[in-house]
Amino acid sequence: MGAAILSGLLTEILIPVAAVVGIAFALVQWLLVSKVRLSPEKPSGSRDGVSDYLIEEEEGLNDHNVVAKCAEIQSAISEGATSFLFTEYQYVGIFMVAFAVLIFLFLGSVEGFSTKAQPCTYSKDKYCKPALANAGFSTISFLLGAITSLVSGFLGMKIATYANARTTLEARKGVGKAFITAFRSGAVMGFLLAANGLLVLYIAINLFKLYYGDDWEGLFESITGYGLGGSSMALFGRVGGGIYTKAADVGADLVGKVERNIPEDDPRNPAVIADNVGDNVGDIAGMGSDLFGSYAESSCAALVVASISSFGVNHDFTAMCYPLLISSMGIIVCLITTLFATDLFEIKAVKEIEPALKRQLIISTFLMTIGIAIISWIALPSTFTIFSFGEQKKVKNWELFFCVAIGLWAGLVIGFVTEYFTSNAYSPVQDVADSCRTGAATNVIFGLALGYKSVIIPIFAIAVSIFVSFSLAAMYGIAVAALGMLSTIATGLAIDAYGPISDNAGGIAEMAGMSHRIRERTDALDAAGNTTAAIGKGFAIGSAALVSLALFGAFVSRAAISTVDVLTPKVFIGLIVGAMLPYWFSAMTMKSVGSAALQMVEEVRRQFNSIPGLMEGTARPDYATCVKISTDASIREMIPPGALVMLTPLIVGTFFGVETLSGVLAGSLVSGVQIAISASNTGGAWDNAKKYIEAGASEHARSLGPKGSDPHKAAVIGDTIGDPLKDTSGPSLNILIKLMAVESLVFAPFFATHGGILFKIF
Amino acid sequence: MGAAILSGLLTEILIPVAAVVGIAFALVQWLLVSKVRLSPEKPSGSRDGVSDYLIEEEEGLNDHNVVAKCAEIQSAISEGATSFLFTEYQYVGIFMVAFAVLIFLFLGSVEGFSTKAQPCTYSKDKYCKPALANAGFSTISFLLGAITSLVSGFLGMKIATYANARTTLEARKGVGKAFITAFRSGAVMGFLLAANGLLVLYIAINLFKLYYGDDWEGLFESITGYGLGGSSMALFGRVGGGIYTKAADVGADLVGKVERNIPEDDPRNPAVIADNVGDNVGDIAGMGSDLFGSYAESSCAALVVASISSFGVNHDFTAMCYPLLISSMGIIVCLITTLFATDLFEIKAVKEIEPALKRQLIISTFLMTIGIAIISWIALPSTFTIFSFGEQKKVKNWELFFCVAIGLWAGLVIGFVTEYFTSNAYSPVQDVADSCRTGAATNVIFGLALGYKSVIIPIFAIAVSIFVSFSLAAMYGIAVAALGMLSTIATGLAIDAYGPISDNAGGIAEMAGMSHRIRERTDALDAAGNTTAAIGKGFAIGSAALVSLALFGAFVSRAAISTVDVLTPKVFIGLIVGAMLPYWFSAMTMKSVGSAALQMVEEVRRQFNSIPGLMEGTARPDYATCVKISTDASIREMIPPGALVMLTPLIVGTFFGVETLSGVLAGSLVSGVQIAISASNTGGAWDNAKKYIEAGASEHARSLGPKGSDPHKAAVIGDTIGDPLKDTSGPSLNILIKLMAVESLVFAPFFATHGGILFKIF
Repeated sequence: MGAAILSGLLTEILIPVAAVVGIAFALVQWLLVSKVRLSPEKPSGSRDGVSDYLIEEEEGLNDHNVVAKCAEIQSAISEGATSFLFTEYQYVGIFMVAFAVLIFLFLGSVEGFSTKAQPCTYSKDKYCKPALANAGFSTISFLLGAITSLVSGFLGMKIATYANARTTLEARKGVGKAFITAFRSGAVMGFLLAANGLLVLYIAINLFKLYYGDDWEGLFESITGYGLGGSSMALFGRVGGGIYTKAADVGADLVGKVERNIPEDDPRNPAVIADNVGDNVGDIAGMGSDLFGSYAESSCAALVVASISSFGVNHDFTAMCYPLLISSMGIIVCLITTLFATDLFEIKAVKEIEPALKRQLIISTFLMTIGIAIISWIALPSTFTIFSFGEQKKVKNWELFFCVAIGLWAGLVIGFVTEYFTSNAYSPVQDVADSCRTGAATNVIFGLALGYKSVIIPIFAIAVSIFVSFSLAAMYGIAVAALGMLSTIATGLAIDAYGPISDNAGGIAEMAGMSHRIRERTDALDAAGNTTAAIGKGFAIGSAALVSLALFGAFVSRAAISTVDVLTPKVFIGLIVGAMLPYWFSAMTMKSVGSAALQMVEEVRRQFNSIPGLMEGTARPDYATCVKISTDASIREMIPPGALVMLTPLIVGTFFGVETLSGVLAGSLVSGVQIAISASNTGGAWDNAKKYIEAGASEHARSLGPKGSDPHKAAVIGDTIGDPLKDTSGPSLNILIKLMAVESLVFAPFFATHGGILFKIF
Repeated sequence: MGAAILSGLLTEILIPVAAVVGIAFALVQWLLVSKVRLSPEKPSGSRDGVSDYLIEEEEGLNDHNVVAKCAEIQSAISEGATSFLFTEYQYVGIFMVAFAVLIFLFLGSVEGFSTKAQPCTYSKDKYCKPALANAGFSTISFLLGAITSLVSGFLGMKIATYANARTTLEARKGVGKAFITAFRSGAVMGFLLAANGLLVLYIAINLFKLYYGDDWEGLFESITGYGLGGSSMALFGRVGGGIYTKAADVGADLVGKVERNIPEDDPRNPAVIADNVGDNVGDIAGMGSDLFGSYAESSCAALVVASISSFGVNHDFTAMCYPLLISSMGIIVCLITTLFATDLFEIKAVKEIEPALKRQLIISTFLMTIGIAIISWIALPSTFTIFSFGEQKKVKNWELFFCVAIGLWAGLVIGFVTEYFTSNAYSPVQDVADSCRTGAATNVIFGLALGYKSVIIPIFAIAVSIFVSFSLAAMYGIAVAALGMLSTIATGLAIDAYGPISDNAGGIAEMAGMSHRIRERTDALDAAGNTTAAIGKGFAIGSAALVSLALFGAFVSRAAISTVDVLTPKVFIGLIVGAMLPYWFSAMTMKSVGSAALQMVEEVRRQFNSIPGLMEGTARPDYATCVKISTDASIREMIPPGALVMLTPLIVGTFFGVETLSGVLAGSLVSGVQIAISASNTGGAWDNAKKYIEAGASEHARSLGPKGSDPHKAAVIGDTIGDPLKDTSGPSLNILIKLMAVESLVFAPFFATHGGILFKIF
């Protein structure tokens, strides 16, 4: 076996140092963004302004009125987003308390709330802490995970709303400046989230160890609550945020563009602020909480599997912390990668934006591969044993390197396939655009077929990663493969957050009445953002699939099941019903968007009818009411789908037992991942097919346009259909499959002891 | 144990008698339909004519010109359909020969083409016939199944094209007369198919027994080729026919309705005959071959499982023939049920049509429940033993009754849920119609959500049947549950075939220039047919799910796998890739429709541009070329999806082995059934939402209409999107899941011996 090269002490130091470096880097980026002034002072006084003036082509830099307007709009968006989040937090608060009580009661009941030490599950000769303690600490780590997720989402949203107007103002100085502002702001979010997640987890482990001592089995079982906390907040972020953003978007468009014939982002539209708020709460806070959840869950899944392997049994702290060390290395690698975008290269033309973003992915993947090799070499013993469903499996350190690396590279493959199917630079989207010639129906048919087709390669990539990592290191391999895919999360999130920031910047330029050239610059930033958003969704679903499988494996280990045999009726009905759940869930979320949008339509109509001078631009609309309607509707509408996700594992586990629950988890995983990928890509393709016709950058594209032509109208219909698919129902499925898995894992001791009531009765 | 009440000799007599009665009944119905004269003689000379004249309100009975025109159109449709089928048969012929050779070589190679008797798989002390003999007989039964399917499909298509013009002519005499003609014709198809399928299978078993003697293991293993034969013809029927029908439909509409602004079914449209042909080859021959495949497969699955159970070991012929006796009883029950529609009740008003059809389903289900009880009582020993994945399971005869009955009733539940979600009498379709107010985009979103939602109850119904029948009698229970669902296949097919016959009758009325009132009558028949078509699709997919599971179970038994553990990488990657296959397959079939439709568009455009006087109605279009284009395109376009289905089991089994193949089968089953149900129902709902607006039968419906209004246009877009979903990609998935399963079962001995090459190498 042998010990790791890295000493336990050094591990204890390196992890928090990396986290702190990440946080410091995020703050530096924030500082750099904040240098863009939002107050209408004369910018030529500063050195920055002077040098800019000399080297870049500028546009309306001295229009103080515009700056004031931008600041005003930004503060409205920021207030709206804050108001949504705080309203959400009230519900979240109630939910958190209720669910914390539930966790405590369910887990405490495993040994009838006894306070006596019990024989350990995996080493019967030793004594472990009582289930009641595990219940208490699980509850605490659940709350920690939830709060960390909330704080990360909140900070991300803050910086995004802080950055959007600044990006607009920088766009006056040129595309390059605007790009750097938007990208730096995205990086703040990415690094804060990755570093905070790591730091809180690390501190929690160390504090819990004070009580648990040598009982690592109980320690890491309790830590899984952290993943559940993170993931259940993602339910609010992804589903609630997803409903919010599309309700506001569709509602604003249906009255503004269709009925009143005013352009998108027109300040006369009462829902325009709500629409911009939606981008922040859906794409920034929602995506952030989703990926944070994946990150927390894959770390917890890896830790809980490792705790019953030779690392845990031998109390090898460095090897045990391998997942955290990978994440630490990820922060450093992403830090270096970011410098390539912000300092080493400079964007000088519109067409350089997308390659620059893609270069980020490639550089981070290459560097991280080396990073993983180093960590695997110094932090792992050359050989160790992994617990694999009742058997022991010998694993070598280089085998584990392959597991992490294959997850990382599968992520890159998924990203590029997603780009191929959703970017209008390639034939799939161009074919969809072309099908608009024969109307909306063919556009929809081709778009759906494209989404279905785009599933093939990602599924093979996921299948290969699963096969390799599963074969090499059982469920531990899967967990670290998921972690590998998420190891460059800081860069991934930076790229991802960049999109909605640019989108908002364009909206602010429009609302502030800035010149057409500035709007063109922000549109170029936004178009690149659309593709990266699709790539981000690809990563999110890919990692969700691996994470759920890892959690599923951990659940199965914890529930002491040694096989999940499809050939038993209990498992098979779970499998087929599980495969149905994503459909049920999607039906709910799609309908939620419809109902919420309808309420928005009514309010916008009411304002246009009852506020005199609104259409003429002499009166100011009541933005706040629209924001409130979106907020209330989205939170109310997320209850049914949320309940479906949260209650299914509890009901199935309690009444049908762990075997049926295993079937449900496997079924919803293999079915949900397909719908999620196809929904995201179909929606992304429709969006970009519309943009392709609007931009008219090629002979072919011009033959379909211009704006308002029949093919363009067909493309707009496709785009509207795609909105809820790509921003609500599709990405929400990540939460469905992950949350059910992590919830099952946390409640596994209860289900194993008391579950399957129905079968016990009959 | 005890023996069955029914003696072996009586079983030998009863089964063929029931089959012959079924065939005779079909011929009587055909005779009754043929009494409607298609020659323009004076009908008042006959007694029928006189009495009709007295009791019903007639319309244009004496217009001899119309009769001649109807006869002419009918013969064009019939010729087109025959030409398609014969072209298809050329490809089918090549395929059949090639695949027969493949079966012989693969299965023959299991024991290296040895001609020596080998120890039996399940009773090692006995000697069984050599694998080479099984290979030969499997090949023969494959050919038998294929030919029976072809003949049944051909006859069904013949009677349908024979009946459509007669239905039009009867519509002159009233709705009731037309209904009976259409329904009787459907019954011909239903009874011929059910009775032929039973008879051929029965004869094959008896002939094979002459060689096999006491080796029932080998006998029934060879018989499974019959299921494979039936199912692989369904591939051509469902997929090829599905592409044909929608290519012609979409092609005709895109030029006729959109570009040339002429109504549907206008005789000036060169694709109009191809469109009508499509209804016959897609909905009649395709649906027939699909259900015949399910029927053959579930019988074979039940037989092969029974052959290694106590029935087989004890050579209890009556109990062994239980599946065939159930089917025999089904024929008798359906015969009685049909009399309720044709003789005991009379349709006098339009609103009585749909209830009459639904009554058929309910009556047949009730009667069949009694029938199953009788068969279970007289044909089964009171207790017997079923082989269940390496274990023996004791089963009582009343338990098996429950298995069959639950399948039967689950079918009824699925049928009614499908009706609820696709009939415009209920709120789901009305909501979808209402969403057309805000445009095509909301219509599509609501329609997709409806389809997703409609999956929930059918899946629970399937899950409950699986759980009950699996728990009571393992895989044998599943197989007989599937057979239960299909036991009323004659009635189901009669109802199902009734739809396209009425649809065609309406088309002929339009083309022959008959009065508006007659078109209204055929439209009323057609509207009821739309809902029953959706119900038929629900049955088809529900039974496909059960059948595939039964085949899967038989495959697993035959391949000597005792567990299919999701927690092994081999199985899990199979599961996730299997769940992806329906998406890949759907992407292919949807794109096939698009490409084939495009070719049709070009030909129709060419004819309008190059044939002078075509638009004016003075020149006759070249119907035959359009028929030929649809024929060629559909057969060419079905090759890629067909290859995906046929090659996947061979590739996976040969290279990855039986465990991965098990995963693929389970994954594609649980994922495919959801997409198939949701695609069918979404398409059906859009179709009926459009019809709801067009009919304008309520205050609400009128507020959305009339034809040509904006909501109606939005509804038309939804309908066009739904066409390939509900008639091509959705129902084709039945074939995907069934065919892969039965192919795996037939090749199981080969895979078990030589499969998994890749894993053996590495």
